[in-house]
Amino acid sequence: MRSAARVLALIAAVSLAAPAAMAETPKFAKNATSFTLDNGLQVVVIPDHRAPIVTHMVWYKAGAADEVPGVSGIAHFLEHLMFKGTKDHPEGEFSKVINSVGGNENAFTSDDTTAYHQTVAKQYLPQMMEFEADRMANLELDVPEVLTERDVILEERRMRIDGNPGARLGEAVRAALYQNSRYGIPTIGWQHEMEQLDLDDALAWYDRYYTPNNAFVIIAGDVTEDEVRKLAEDTYGKVKRRFDPPPRFRAVEPEPQAARTVTLSDPQVMQPSMQRLYLVPSYTTAEPGEAEALDILAEILGGGTTSRLYRDLVVDQGIAASAGTFYQSNQLGDTMLGFYGSPRGEVTLDQIEAALDRAIASVVADGVTAAEVASAKRRLIAATIFAEDNASTLARALGTAIATGETIEDAQNWPLAIDAVTVEDVNAAAARYLDIRRSVTGYLVGEPAKNPS
Amino acid sequence: MRSAARVLALIAAVSLAAPAAMAETPKFAKNATSFTLDNGLQVVVIPDHRAPIVTHMVWYKAGAADEVPGVSGIAHFLEHLMFKGTKDHPEGEFSKVINSVGGNENAFTSDDTTAYHQTVAKQYLPQMMEFEADRMANLELDVPEVLTERDVILEERRMRIDGNPGARLGEAVRAALYQNSRYGIPTIGWQHEMEQLDLDDALAWYDRYYTPNNAFVIIAGDVTEDEVRKLAEDTYGKVKRRFDPPPRFRAVEPEPQAARTVTLSDPQVMQPSMQRLYLVPSYTTAEPGEAEALDILAEILGGGTTSRLYRDLVVDQGIAASAGTFYQSNQLGDTMLGFYGSPRGEVTLDQIEAALDRAIASVVADGVTAAEVASAKRRLIAATIFAEDNASTLARALGTAIATGETIEDAQNWPLAIDAVTVEDVNAAAARYLDIRRSVTGYLVGEPAKNPS
Repeated sequence: MRSAARVLALIAAVSLAAPAAMAETPKFAKNATSFTLDNGLQVVVIPDHRAPIVTHMVWYKAGAADEVPGVSGIAHFLEHLMFKGTKDHPEGEFSKVINSVGGNENAFTSDDTTAYHQTVAKQYLPQMMEFEADRMANLELDVPEVLTERDVILEERRMRIDGNPGARLGEAVRAALYQNSRYGIPTIGWQHEMEQLDLDDALAWYDRYYTPNNAFVIIAGDVTEDEVRKLAEDTYGKVKRRFDPPPRFRAVEPEPQAARTVTLSDPQVMQPSMQRLYLVPSYTTAEPGEAEALDILAEILGGGTTSRLYRDLVVDQGIAASAGTFYQSNQLGDTMLGFYGSPRGEVTLDQIEAALDRAIASVVADGVTAAEVASAKRRLIAATIFAEDNASTLARALGTAIATGETIEDAQNWPLAIDAVTVEDVNAAAARYLDIRRSVTGYLVGEPAKNPS
Repeated sequence: MRSAARVLALIAAVSLAAPAAMAETPKFAKNATSFTLDNGLQVVVIPDHRAPIVTHMVWYKAGAADEVPGVSGIAHFLEHLMFKGTKDHPEGEFSKVINSVGGNENAFTSDDTTAYHQTVAKQYLPQMMEFEADRMANLELDVPEVLTERDVILEERRMRIDGNPGARLGEAVRAALYQNSRYGIPTIGWQHEMEQLDLDDALAWYDRYYTPNNAFVIIAGDVTEDEVRKLAEDTYGKVKRRFDPPPRFRAVEPEPQAARTVTLSDPQVMQPSMQRLYLVPSYTTAEPGEAEALDILAEILGGGTTSRLYRDLVVDQGIAASAGTFYQSNQLGDTMLGFYGSPRGEVTLDQIEAALDRAIASVVADGVTAAEVASAKRRLIAATIFAEDNASTLARALGTAIATGETIEDAQNWPLAIDAVTVEDVNAAAARYLDIRRSVTGYLVGEPAKNPS
């Protein structure tokens, strides 16, 4: 206890010292600029000349929530299949080049977007762009490749979800939270639908979404806009616009009427835990200022070791091994503000939930303080400053914002928008959204479920 | 208590007497025959000459679960708009004719189908067919009509759902039960999506689904197949096939992982109640014999006053004001087997749920008896015999089966399929499907929810 309290005091001292260093609120990614090629591809450049390195990302405005009923998992499946090669660059060549020059690469699929990225020494950027431009238009797939890769994603699902009770609970909780939107369906897909995905599904997805006017590129690092423009015209500029992408659509959730619970019981569970998700607006769906207020609210309640929940449950009462919040703020549709906690020793989930309920009731009834808001702002804005240190982190954060409908200016001004939040804004957001009817509470327990199976 | 027990003894005596009356299991709607017109319209005839009356139904193979994301309620909205008239028969004329001849009419929309029906004296059948054939092809709609009728369906939603806590709980419970299929979305639609429905949505739905080759007609009553064939050719036969309907699709549910609860709290609630829904197969999705076994299981556990739940909770313990089961068996996709109970006097929902849990645990662990199965079969088969007494009931039951993919023969043989169910079949269905992980439990309570709103 005593040592934890000392750590907190130290962090508080550091936080209090911070304002002097940022008398003026900084913009986020302030060097970012962008241009659009004739084929509709937007190219964003974030110059940063501190090291001769670049991060190159291609983002497609299509994610799991764009899937149609019955083919869940196709967005993520296509992400895998994009590594199968083209006529000019057969499978493996792209990755081999990256490895041979000491770079790294990866790709990810979310509800709203799919992205591919490499970080390499600056002189290899033209080659990265040529590879990505090539697979944007010329992907070649055949039935055996698709069937083999389908086994890979099924194995990925087995390992990441089916073999992990917490992940299975996560799927069930999201399915209960989202009553109308596709966010209730797992990004990786339902197993029984993944098993049916085939070459036709893959090509249909590729042909529908993989076109320059449905994509954008972010290049962050040791480059100038002029250099990038020239390279982009020589590579991506040659890719033909294949169609006009459909307007993006996310089904709106009905006003929630009833509190829900989800209990996943599995003998594998050694450490029980609970979570509580509330349906809240995202930066895309919120009224002006509301998402920023939710960011501050989440930070005050559960952001790190100085938050109310951590101090109450972990430090003061000592009943929790962990406690915190998360706000999935950058989504095209309505999203979740979540709380979690896991008990320490003999403490029960009921005790953790009761403490969480008290913390929530207290913030709804009595609000937050000006000091809490000021401190949360400092921490959130400081985090954006730290992000500036890493070109790859910067590119990813800016890309997520653009992929969910923000402009570059929106993203750049985010620290200013955070700075403008008032105590009243935070209290209004708490009162409006921390309503048990908007929530799902998930329990992960080791005991068998109460009914025989 | 004593008098209730006497009533039960009397019913049991009647049940025991029944087998003599049906030594051979009767077919259902055994006179039903069918033919198909050149335009693809199937016409089913069920002759019944006991009274000079006919029931005429037109069924479209399109229901709420065929809607695409964002336009929930359009199937039901179009049902309303079908009464707006055509060039030859302006709004109100059809209904006026029916009323003037002492007939009655109605329409309904379900997850899987939309149907329109009239019951009239036999001589008016040709006119009914002419009216229905006309609006199958020639519906005329304009913007003011659509906007006015949209207010009507919104008011219908306010009265039937929003003003009724039990209905609101029902929506939330189904949304939690169905994690993948559209059955989790209310047939009437979500209010915020209904408010956006417009003329284009209505015409798109009409043009997609209202074509003779996506419909069937059932005529039950004082007619012969030959008479109906002639009339059908003169009326429906003139309607052009507008397109080939898409294959019917219902997203398959993932194997459920976690028990769920939904609590709706509203000061309007004077009588608390609970329900428990299990995800189970329908007649369309089940393995052979499994849906029949579920029908028998539901009947044994909660079908009427001789059922286990009613006897235990209402009669013997006297803790429940009501208790029973329902099985929504005729659905294109996986469906629900439900249990419900409401406490008497000071009894709590927990006590009702505990009794339900015991009843379910007992049937899973110890199974049912041969006498219970025999008695349930008699009651289910007897119900089909009673249905034969009413041409309209018969038409509706047969239509529901056809609309969800059964053949006429499947439906006719249903009593035989029920008769073939064994004790082992029922026990296997109970063990497989009465698993708490497959379930959602709903609570309707009067107290405020535990968190402030």
